[in-house]
Amino acid sequence: MSGNTIGKLFTVTSFGESHGPAIGCIVDGCPPGMALTEADLQEDLDRRKPGTSRHTTQRREADEVRILSGVFEGKTTGTPIGLLIENTDQRSKDYSKIADTFRPGHADYSYQHKYGIRDYRGGGRSSARETAMRVAAGGIAKKYLKEQAGIDIRGYLSQLGPIKIEKVDWSIIDSNPFFCPDADKVADMEAYMDALRKEGESIGARIEVVATNVPPGLGEPIFDRLDADLAHALMSINAVKGVEIGDGFACIDSKGTQFRDEITPDGFLSNHAGGILGGISSGQNVTASIALKPTSSLRLPGRSINLQGEAIEVVTEGRHDPCVGIRATPIAEAMMAIVIMDHLLRHRAQNLNVQSGLPVLR
Amino acid sequence: MSGNTIGKLFTVTSFGESHGPAIGCIVDGCPPGMALTEADLQEDLDRRKPGTSRHTTQRREADEVRILSGVFEGKTTGTPIGLLIENTDQRSKDYSKIADTFRPGHADYSYQHKYGIRDYRGGGRSSARETAMRVAAGGIAKKYLKEQAGIDIRGYLSQLGPIKIEKVDWSIIDSNPFFCPDADKVADMEAYMDALRKEGESIGARIEVVATNVPPGLGEPIFDRLDADLAHALMSINAVKGVEIGDGFACIDSKGTQFRDEITPDGFLSNHAGGILGGISSGQNVTASIALKPTSSLRLPGRSINLQGEAIEVVTEGRHDPCVGIRATPIAEAMMAIVIMDHLLRHRAQNLNVQSGLPVLR
Amino acid sequence: MSGNTIGKLFTVTSFGESHGPAIGCIVDGCPPGMALTEADLQEDLDRRKPGTSRHTTQRREADEVRILSGVFEGKTTGTPIGLLIENTDQRSKDYSKIADTFRPGHADYSYQHKYGIRDYRGGGRSSARETAMRVAAGGIAKKYLKEQAGIDIRGYLSQLGPIKIEKVDWSIIDSNPFFCPDADKVADMEAYMDALRKEGESIGARIEVVATNVPPGLGEPIFDRLDADLAHALMSINAVKGVEIGDGFACIDSKGTQFRDEITPDGFLSNHAGGILGGISSGQNVTASIALKPTSSLRLPGRSINLQGEAIEVVTEGRHDPCVGIRATPIAEAMMAIVIMDHLLRHRAQNLNVQSGLPVLR
Amino acid sequence: MSGNTIGKLFTVTSFGESHGPAIGCIVDGCPPGMALTEADLQEDLDRRKPGTSRHTTQRREADEVRILSGVFEGKTTGTPIGLLIENTDQRSKDYSKIADTFRPGHADYSYQHKYGIRDYRGGGRSSARETAMRVAAGGIAKKYLKEQAGIDIRGYLSQLGPIKIEKVDWSIIDSNPFFCPDADKVADMEAYMDALRKEGESIGARIEVVATNVPPGLGEPIFDRLDADLAHALMSINAVKGVEIGDGFACIDSKGTQFRDEITPDGFLSNHAGGILGGISSGQNVTASIALKPTSSLRLPGRSINLQGEAIEVVTEGRHDPCVGIRATPIAEAMMAIVIMDHLLRHRAQNLNVQSGLPVLR
Repeated sequence: MSGNTIGKLFTVTSFGESHGPAIGCIVDGCPPGMALTEADLQEDLDRRKPGTSRHTTQRREADEVRILSGVFEGKTTGTPIGLLIENTDQRSKDYSKIADTFRPGHADYSYQHKYGIRDYRGGGRSSARETAMRVAAGGIAKKYLKEQAGIDIRGYLSQLGPIKIEKVDWSIIDSNPFFCPDADKVADMEAYMDALRKEGESIGARIEVVATNVPPGLGEPIFDRLDADLAHALMSINAVKGVEIGDGFACIDSKGTQFRDEITPDGFLSNHAGGILGGISSGQNVTASIALKPTSSLRLPGRSINLQGEAIEVVTEGRHDPCVGIRATPIAEAMMAIVIMDHLLRHRAQNLNVQSGLPVLR
Repeated sequence: MSGNTIGKLFTVTSFGESHGPAIGCIVDGCPPGMALTEADLQEDLDRRKPGTSRHTTQRREADEVRILSGVFEGKTTGTPIGLLIENTDQRSKDYSKIADTFRPGHADYSYQHKYGIRDYRGGGRSSARETAMRVAAGGIAKKYLKEQAGIDIRGYLSQLGPIKIEKVDWSIIDSNPFFCPDADKVADMEAYMDALRKEGESIGARIEVVATNVPPGLGEPIFDRLDADLAHALMSINAVKGVEIGDGFACIDSKGTQFRDEITPDGFLSNHAGGILGGISSGQNVTASIALKPTSSLRLPGRSINLQGEAIEVVTEGRHDPCVGIRATPIAEAMMAIVIMDHLLRHRAQNLNVQSGLPVLR
Repeated sequence: MSGNTIGKLFTVTSFGESHGPAIGCIVDGCPPGMALTEADLQEDLDRRKPGTSRHTTQRREADEVRILSGVFEGKTTGTPIGLLIENTDQRSKDYSKIADTFRPGHADYSYQHKYGIRDYRGGGRSSARETAMRVAAGGIAKKYLKEQAGIDIRGYLSQLGPIKIEKVDWSIIDSNPFFCPDADKVADMEAYMDALRKEGESIGARIEVVATNVPPGLGEPIFDRLDADLAHALMSINAVKGVEIGDGFACIDSKGTQFRDEITPDGFLSNHAGGILGGISSGQNVTASIALKPTSSLRLPGRSINLQGEAIEVVTEGRHDPCVGIRATPIAEAMMAIVIMDHLLRHRAQNLNVQSGLPVLR
Repeated sequence: MSGNTIGKLFTVTSFGESHGPAIGCIVDGCPPGMALTEADLQEDLDRRKPGTSRHTTQRREADEVRILSGVFEGKTTGTPIGLLIENTDQRSKDYSKIADTFRPGHADYSYQHKYGIRDYRGGGRSSARETAMRVAAGGIAKKYLKEQAGIDIRGYLSQLGPIKIEKVDWSIIDSNPFFCPDADKVADMEAYMDALRKEGESIGARIEVVATNVPPGLGEPIFDRLDADLAHALMSINAVKGVEIGDGFACIDSKGTQFRDEITPDGFLSNHAGGILGGISSGQNVTASIALKPTSSLRLPGRSINLQGEAIEVVTEGRHDPCVGIRATPIAEAMMAIVIMDHLLRHRAQNLNVQSGLPVLR
């Protein structure tokens, strides 16, 4: 299959450029009979939406999603769900000056090499604008997982540049502009971002995503393991440079007795593995962490070349997120939801009626 | 497709259990006309083979691969290449006592939940034994990439528990048991491993893999990005808990001006991105890093449950690698080779004859 | 992948119901740099469009396609092409009375069994309305094949009920309502259809499709043979019950010396095989033939059951094609184009630079 | 995916040449817990095996299949099942003279164009020898369908050249060399074949395959319809030139009132559609029919060219089936079984727990 589809049974196929008339996607494989309205998807879209605080890009997009098919009288029918968002705030002229330049750190240069042509307006297809469709599609998966399997998928920002959270209070995540779960760090983050903006700089971030109540058994070894598919889905998000499952890189300097999660009849004693053993969910929380790089769109000049191969200086004056990680929490949740949904369906297909004889431990 | 196939155009489909009669795979999509013999694949298999030093498992496997199809008069024919390795050192009786126990940190528990049945001998399908086929299949990709595109794929161990390398000397990698590129650290590693073995413990490790001379343009946004597919392939290796592209998690506390790799007519000024921009290779070295957890197979007792859900103590007495990372370098190379090979073919298919008008910069 | 995608490298993913707000599709994998406008696709859409003669349904659909992405400044960019057609003539009330009945010969009954819910308006997803998107997507493939490879794909109606054509004059196909290539049969067909309409009946038809100038080498044995993929694509068209390649069923009573297409240095002496040998194109014309059943939507009453399982009598009063085959020629062409396009890309990927040493014979 | 894999959830990936050391396949996606031994697969392999009567090729192959993985203590484990058959009767020297000639009607010429190289011994990959693996893999599907869903899949030869059967007596099919269900025609067929052999000719045939007790709901519109996937699978069999579902081409001259299968509370009144409506199984018998061409391997000389493009005369003296259709019944059954198995799993995945509220009618 071509590169714009993800999933095997629950598939999302996406299209659209930053400054084209619309972006959209087709969600295929959603089971029939689930109540679904546009409002169900709008909630996460609004969480991702730009322009909701001074810390994100000021591009104004209504990001109103329309369901074009696959839902009849308020319920999914099992047929593909077409989703569409019109691009309303395109301002193409902002971008005309980059037509033959390649912004360093951006996809401009590699797209030009690959295709020999590119829609340079706002990054075209490589713009993070496409992540709106991931959020919309992921919303369908999240709803199904929640309602049919009791699975919750939630995320938060755990690090913004040098500022690391020290505690996780789920109740405050949606009440600050960072999806930060540590109330004591919000003011620091605000101050940091304000200084950064003045400086003209950008910064990286770390996001954690957690799925709770995942049934054991999801994941298809040896290549389509749950962790491998999560790594694929999360690494496919713009600006992501690293993915960890469970303790991730901290495992390197761990010893076996520390790292192996011992089991008792009452449950696991730890969850270093992040809820996945041998590529298959164990029943514990599935946890993943991603690193997002600082955006390369800066008003501080950078060295680059133009289409003629000549040295130039690039200054980006458009509206950009100084920390793309700030808006990435709903996107990461969406990608985890899509992967778990896909594996829930795949697991069912092959392993229906399996009696493991084992208790589900958490 | 089911879980035992990787790739879209250059595909590897794998089968086999640790203690079954044989393991094997089918490599489909290799271009015709390439010289190929079993010896070409044996070299990397021997690099991965157990029992070559006191620091790895003492299981003795000849790991001799047979080519069963797809090669005629010494050349690939374009038809699928069947590969087979007989299991010669099975010693099933070592494993009989774990028939109804679940080793903590292993896939025993999750396989039981998923399938309700498992070949418990040596971990069955979840054993790292299957990685031999990855190495064999990857050998085909490596050879093609090298000969037809000049692409080299090499790896090394960059950290073993607390010991981090400080320099990379490619010439010594294959002359020590760790694939360690820093001659000054080899003695430390040997001492560390000897102590660890006495202790009965295991430890994690970090592997780096680098592809040089990759043409720009490989990778299919937005989901099948080169980095996303590398993350998938690398995370699918047993024991891997984290994947980084380029600087990986270090990007979190980087600023945009530091991280964006500026471009000059003579080349890029840095490679924090790991050779991938917007999911597409830029022409720079493609670099990835993985974290491997310490094995959970220890002779130090661990708490677990049995098939009846009762508390038990598990002691593993078989032959195990105290650091699975030690033998993982050829496996990581193989997975990177498979992914780059797949994307080389995919890129060709859609973008044949594209004239980017751009120089290839490194 | 889920059921609404066709192709491996050149993929079409479709959505939309007969009476929903819109139908659409995503075409992924089109090479960059091809000139493309909506007008290029409109031509075939207009050939398929209902209501152009008294012999087809009188539903009025403008069928105006919009390109939403993947084209920039008039050229394809290599990114997915989103296509959308608004449904303008929906008249839902016509269909309300079939909400809990199952029209015999229709998908109503099987959809209900599969999904437990269905958009009953006009057949919902099972309506032939979705074939408009096939034609639009196929138009992209046809244009590429024509311009880049000189391949022409054309079809005609070769039989309408009892009336068989006796000659093929390509020049008249688009100048009669049947895509009939035999001028001497058009009047017969008109008379036949007029009588049929009065009767309240429907009738089957046969369509032939031919691709000329196909390069040898397309098709991936052993499962994704060119003939197998054509059979899949053509059988997926609504109402198709049979597919033939070349002479098709006539081969049963043929002898080997008759059927094998002998070869001379000047070309093949016959083309019973339909241009495909061993699943791979030979360079001769690729020919296929399909049988379309008579529509089951009739004003003559039929026996059926309702949702309660009770016997009912069904009379269909909507606007229906008495011979769905009449409008099927552009659809069959589109499906053949999509398959050949996909295989052209696949062939390139694996077999670039192959020197067969053989002449291309026709 | 590359061309040697079929299926989405129940997948079969095949390798092997006619005269290589072995042929094999990997069956991925078989549910765990099913009893399976080599004997279960051998039965159909023996039905397909050459040399069992004077009417088929005298090549002697034991065709003994080995299960190399995926079965533990007599039961499937849910992991991939590796199957292998050694080629024992290769006699390569028979074929050396065709090294640089292209037999008319064979894949020699198209393989040479595609790959620039081919294993010419016995047709290499294009030989019908690979169908042994289809039969072995299909045997797994057949067993599962029979035991878990009560679905039976059986076939018969319905026409051999000019001789058409007139009745179907399932009990005699396996007791004559043709899989002929009409006892009155067996002698005619024997006489016909004896004459044909003397003549040096070959002949075509028609096979019917029927699945009974198929649950309603299988098939994924709009592209992966059950009929489309059957057409794909059946057309992928060597020598097949046509596929029909239900009445097939007879629908062309049928009227709507005749063809639509009316429904009553006690069942359908006919089954012209072949058990598939809108691409989804209706619960009626699924019926398909295929046409197999006469083999082109004849001792009667045929005109062709050699690798130098010169005119030559080709005479095939090896051991060949004068009617490949005679041994094709188990192959067609296997392909139908693989498709239905795949769709059974796919249907489950998306539509688990659907309550249609409808009776299952036959």
